[in-house]
This record gives sequence, C-alpha cells and structure tokens, in this order.
Amino acid sequence: MGTSLVRYTSTKSKQPSWGVLKEEKIHALKVKFDHHRDVMDLYHSNRTKFDAAIAKTSISRSDAEFLSPLSQDIQLIAQGMNYESHRAESRVTGAEKEVQDDDQNLLFYKASSTISKPNVTILRPKNTKLLDYEIELGIVMKKAITKATEVTEKNLGDYIGGLILTNDVSSRDEMFGASVLQWYKGKSFRTFCPAGPVLYLLDGDDIKQIYSLQLKLSLNGTVMQDATTDQLLHKPPATLTELSTFTNLNVGDCIITGTPGGVLMNLNVKTALAIVLNLKKDRKRREKLTAAQLAKRAFLKPGDVLELEIKSTDGRINLGRQRNEIAEA
Amino acid sequence: MGTSLVRYTSTKSKQPSWGVLKEEKIHALKVKFDHHRDVMDLYHSNRTKFDAAIAKTSISRSDAEFLSPLSQDIQLIAQGMNYESHRAESRVTGAEKEVQDDDQNLLFYKASSTISKPNVTILRPKNTKLLDYEIELGIVMKKAITKATEVTEKNLGDYIGGLILTNDVSSRDEMFGASVLQWYKGKSFRTFCPAGPVLYLLDGDDIKQIYSLQLKLSLNGTVMQDATTDQLLHKPPATLTELSTFTNLNVGDCIITGTPGGVLMNLNVKTALAIVLNLKKDRKRREKLTAAQLAKRAFLKPGDVLELEIKSTDGRINLGRQRNEIAEA
Repeated sequence: MGTSLVRYTSTKSKQPSWGVLKEEKIHALKVKFDHHRDVMDLYHSNRTKFDAAIAKTSISRSDAEFLSPLSQDIQLIAQGMNYESHRAESRVTGAEKEVQDDDQNLLFYKASSTISKPNVTILRPKNTKLLDYEIELGIVMKKAITKATEVTEKNLGDYIGGLILTNDVSSRDEMFGASVLQWYKGKSFRTFCPAGPVLYLLDGDDIKQIYSLQLKLSLNGTVMQDATTDQLLHKPPATLTELSTFTNLNVGDCIITGTPGGVLMNLNVKTALAIVLNLKKDRKRREKLTAAQLAKRAFLKPGDVLELEIKSTDGRINLGRQRNEIAEA
Repeated sequence: MGTSLVRYTSTKSKQPSWGVLKEEKIHALKVKFDHHRDVMDLYHSNRTKFDAAIAKTSISRSDAEFLSPLSQDIQLIAQGMNYESHRAESRVTGAEKEVQDDDQNLLFYKASSTISKPNVTILRPKNTKLLDYEIELGIVMKKAITKATEVTEKNLGDYIGGLILTNDVSSRDEMFGASVLQWYKGKSFRTFCPAGPVLYLLDGDDIKQIYSLQLKLSLNGTVMQDATTDQLLHKPPATLTELSTFTNLNVGDCIITGTPGGVLMNLNVKTALAIVLNLKKDRKRREKLTAAQLAKRAFLKPGDVLELEIKSTDGRINLGRQRNEIAEA
C-alpha cells in the first residue's frame, strides 16, 4: 500500500510543509527537502526512515491549503490524442479511416512554470477565447533514464515512483492559431497545470493499478469527462521506451498521459477546413477556427468552476480532488 | 569589453574547469561552481571578484577539449522561421502572399538534454533520413522573468547576460512525420544542440552588437549559411516580452533565435502537398515528404563535417568555432 504525499501550508504556519494524508487527516512529514525528487528518493530508498519521519499527530485537511507536490524545476512532457474517445472528437466527421494510420505517439512539451497548486484560480489569458480543460494522469519518474531503455509492464515500477492528478489546461486558439500549429505556447500559460493535491508514492503491487484509475471532470456541476486509464492508447511502458530513444528523463520529471473525450474543443468540418486551408495564415486560421468553435459551444469563462478527481475503481488509490475557478488574467 | 567564458578539460586534468579565453590562450577561472548560472551571477554582480579569479598563467587551446559552457538543466526555448531568408526557402514557390499574414513568433521547446560539447559527434538517429543543421545565436538570461514584462532595446541588457553559438540540429522526418507536425521530438535527440565553445559574457555596450553578428556554417567545406543577426524578424526584446506573457524564464535559460536560409530542407510543391494532403496520416506523410526531399538533395550522412562560427562584423565579439562530424547513432 502506497503513501499519499501532500505539500501544504496551514492556518498555523505559512511555511510550506510536506505531509502524509491518512483518512482525511494530514500528518506532518519531518524532512528538510524542498523538492519532491528528494522526498521520493528517501521514500524509495529508505522506507523505514521515511515512515519514522511521519508525525503521529495530525491536522484536519480543512486547516490546510494544499500546494503542488511537484516542484516547478522539472521537465513536464505531455501526450496528446492518447484516448480513443478524445481522438474520436478530434476527428472530422466521416473521416474515421484517416486516423487508423495515425499510430504515432504525440509528444509535446509544456512549460513547467504552469505547475500550480491543485485549487489555483486558472487565469484565462487576455487574448484567449478558446480556454479548455483536460484531466490527465501524471506519472512521476523515480529513476533517471539517460539512454535507450526497454521499459515493459514488468519493470515499469522501477521507473515510475508516483502518480498525480493534473489538468492540462489549453488555449486552443493559441495552439491552432500560432505559427505552424505550435502547441508549446497554447499549453504553457501560468496556472495551466494545477497538480495534486496528492503525489501518490507507489509501493508493492500498486503499479498494477495504473490501468484501473478513473478520471472524472465536471464543469459547473455537469460531468464532462469520465473514463478509466485502461483506455490509454500509448501506455506508459511504450511511452517511456520511446522517450528514452531520444531524450533524458530525470528523477521527479512528470509525463502527463493524455486526456479522454469530453473536452470543449471538438473538431468539425468547418474547423478542419479553417485549419487546412489556412495552414500558413495564422491570423485568418485563428479567426475562422475560433468562430467555428464558438458557434457550437461556450468555452471556459470567468466564474466557471471545474472539479476533477482521479481514484482507482476499487478505491484503494485516491489522488484527491481539484476545484478551480476561472478568472481573467 | 565582455569576457569569453569556456568550460574545458585539459590534457593534464579530466576534471571540467571554467576558463577565460584571451588571444587563443585559456586562463583558468578559479571558482567552485558547476552551473553557468552561478558563474554568470558572479560576473554580473561582482566583476572585481570574477576578474581576481582569473589565473595569470594559461594553457594553449590545443591542450584543452572544450565542453558546453551551458549546463543541461535549463530551459531551452527555440524560435522558428525567424530570418526572411529561411522563411523564403520554407515557402512553396509562387505562394509568397500566403506568408505575409504569418506574423506570429514561432516558439517551441527543445529538450535540454540535447545540449552537448561544441565539437561533439552528432548522432543521426536510427530512423532519420532527413538530418539537417541550423546555425543559431543563443541568448542566455542573466535575470529571471516571472511575470509579464516589457523588454525593450534599451533594457535588453538587463535580461540578457550571455551569447553563445548553437546548432539546432533537426530530424525533419520526425518533425513533419510525427503526429500533428510535432517539433519537440524532431528537435530533441541527444547531441542535437552542440553549444559553445564560448559563452560570451556581455559588458558595457556589448549588447548593441547583438544585431551585427555574422553566422556562418559550412558543410564539407562549402558555405551553406551566411547571414547577420540584423535580419532577425522577431528580435530578442519582442521575443522576451512575448515569452514573459505566458511563462517564467530563469537565470541561465537559453533562447535560440532561429536560423537563416541555407538549410537542407527546402519546401517544394510536392513536399507541401505531401504534408497538407496527409495531415492526419503520419506514416504516409512521412514517406511522401521524405521521398520529395531526398529527390532534391542529400541530407546529412555519416562522415559529413559541419563547421560553424559566429562573430561580430567588427571582430570584437567572437563566439568561437564548432566542428562536428556526423555518425550513425
């Protein structure tokens, strides 16, 4: 059974502390580290010492404000189109066959300065009209990879040390309106990655639960996304193996594994044409796709409230809940 | 007059050391730091102490092997299509007008594990047929940016503390063959960013020279790229201002500012059609664009030699030379 690590300030102390969440109570973790990498190192290398650092006394979670358990100075790598239900809504009607050849793993980078406390107010950037959410499971490295490495279901637990709830907030107009469909900027505004509250530190057989986690996201009380991780297309072992062929991964780095269907952006023929016919005309493409999208539905606006949670279907692993209000930047 | 900082090992010591390059001689810099951020901090905050740490004795550069003066644990942000001459060759013949509306700054992220010593052997990834070079000026932050900030020509010197020669090596088939034209993977293979040898630490009025640097790249002895930085389209002040609107920049982070014309990839009608008609079919798009490109010219192959240099037109600032051989990964 793993451990629910949290980072928090309390009504008594504004100093960020580490803690362990047990049955709705926070037990302070008496360690001096600032970076989750060091806490994970201790947990995975010396569990006895880690456990001895957990205070017997506890405070109620209502006396705490959760911070992100992830430090900002990590690499934050993201997968796109990694659930069939999300692929389906990103597909032009009647064009199903086009996607079957699309068997590559879509990998992109999200600036790590997006990492924010789990209940942060998400700021809609000044020029963004198409603000969207994406609930995602984040997997956190416990072992560095510096060369091509075969990661399998069997040895996955040697590389992944923690699980975390994240929201891959996206400015769709920046993504598809920016030059050559660049995703980096559209995914990388401040507050665009609420993370936590829990960094679930894996233990024993926990890793097997990685495909039985349920992701659920509501917008203003209506469930919009609801899926389990058994639907992941490019699974963590294949993804880590592919990443290892080109780049290094450090302890503490986080890979967010893609979102299921139910986001606000939904590709229709009008939008697809706006993109394809204006591939090299940023302003026109952005205007036309924005109009096509807004004709169909409202995107996130100030005052909207998102609620997210991830937990295993058997209830044993619980990554906690996020509640985010949207505001103007 | 600024300072040419280098990182090296010598025939005498395999321990990486910092040094200052003066008239082809390396003077050891007696500081304990491992990260260029700390060396820059010292230089820009206490020049007297920095100068006092420079050894009077020196060694010949032929007795040293240069390492990258940039540490790998930074953010490495890149600009695309930032010289008119490179835009022109990326433009489909007869379609000039399409580009005039394309006034956005193309920003993407390159994994920092690409950062390598200046004369590294560049490894062509196993499945890459379209390996390409891009000589670029790197600008290195000396002051962090954590909120929207107006950077101007006048205060640019408050933010940029160093200049460096880089090669933004690219696997064109990964870039345009990967899902939804993703650039991250195509730009992020190990050895894909030779950097240095010199990290030129700016002083006094040096920042004014930022637009009179000459970039020159040769392939097997033939000059392929030759341009000056006065042709930069989205200049550093506008680029930092835009980046500041969405992300944080830390001391030591590097922005590589785009490449001039003369790269191997050259957009022709056949390639453009291969991309546009197969936007969602990765394998087919990759095959067709690879065939269209290889029909026109050879891309980098094992045994090829690249030579790069950047210096100011008046010769005062010299970022040194790189010589890279290509080999199979």
